[in-house]
Amino acid sequence: VRSMSNTRKSKRFTFTTTYKTLEKILTDHNLATLGDAYTNLIYSLYLSIKTGKPTGAKASSRMLSKALKQAGLRDLMSSRLDRHSQADAAEALLVYAWLQGQATITESVNILSSHEKVADAFSSLLTDTKKKLDL
Amino acid sequence: VRSMSNTRKSKRFTFTTTYKTLEKILTDHNLATLGDAYTNLIYSLYLSIKTGKPTGAKASSRMLSKALKQAGLRDLMSSRLDRHSQADAAEALLVYAWLQGQATITESVNILSSHEKVADAFSSLLTDTKKKLDL
Repeated sequence: VRSMSNTRKSKRFTFTTTYKTLEKILTDHNLATLGDAYTNLIYSLYLSIKTGKPTGAKASSRMLSKALKQAGLRDLMSSRLDRHSQADAAEALLVYAWLQGQATITESVNILSSHEKVADAFSSLLTDTKKKLDL
Repeated sequence: VRSMSNTRKSKRFTFTTTYKTLEKILTDHNLATLGDAYTNLIYSLYLSIKTGKPTGAKASSRMLSKALKQAGLRDLMSSRLDRHSQADAAEALLVYAWLQGQATITESVNILSSHEKVADAFSSLLTDTKKKLDL
């Protein structure tokens, strides 16, 4: 399945670095800064679908760190990392999968939209993303 | 050309309202809030390509209002609107085209990346977007 998916999908942009471990992705600060913009867009689309009108908002560190923990990804990182670094990790992972062509915005927002509570929505998306990356 | 493109492309999400005039799009405040998240992502991708590493940033109202004027779209709006409302208009137009399936992030970032100065980049993208919408 993995090799099939790799032949179908490809990197979106030349600046994308390919990593061999989840830990490297979760702790890449540059990825996290771009991931913040990416995550705010998919969160805004989730809210837009929920409210029935275009809506812009910022995903909170509290919610994202909760989702990271629920998805079982928190344990891959140092126990000393604060909530903000945990949210960064979630954002880095989400944008990494998108940059690698392993996720699309439409399908990610559909996954989010199948959940009522936002932390459950992002936990589910992070779990799905981890599976897709298969590292 | 237009009908061909309309058969190929379709709305991405159910909350999208279809407008018949550019003026309606440019002054939709809800679209502008979602457009802010969308625009920050494509601006961040433009910077990531330029710098060769993932980068997150917020597109400024100053730059976007300048780009709107350069693209000839400023004249469609009330002359009393301040810089922030002009930036909102640019953001609303960009996300509208994407929601309608008339633009993709990859092609939009490619258009941006063919310009050195960021206001020129967004002016070019706005001009291209206006043409694609054909209103």
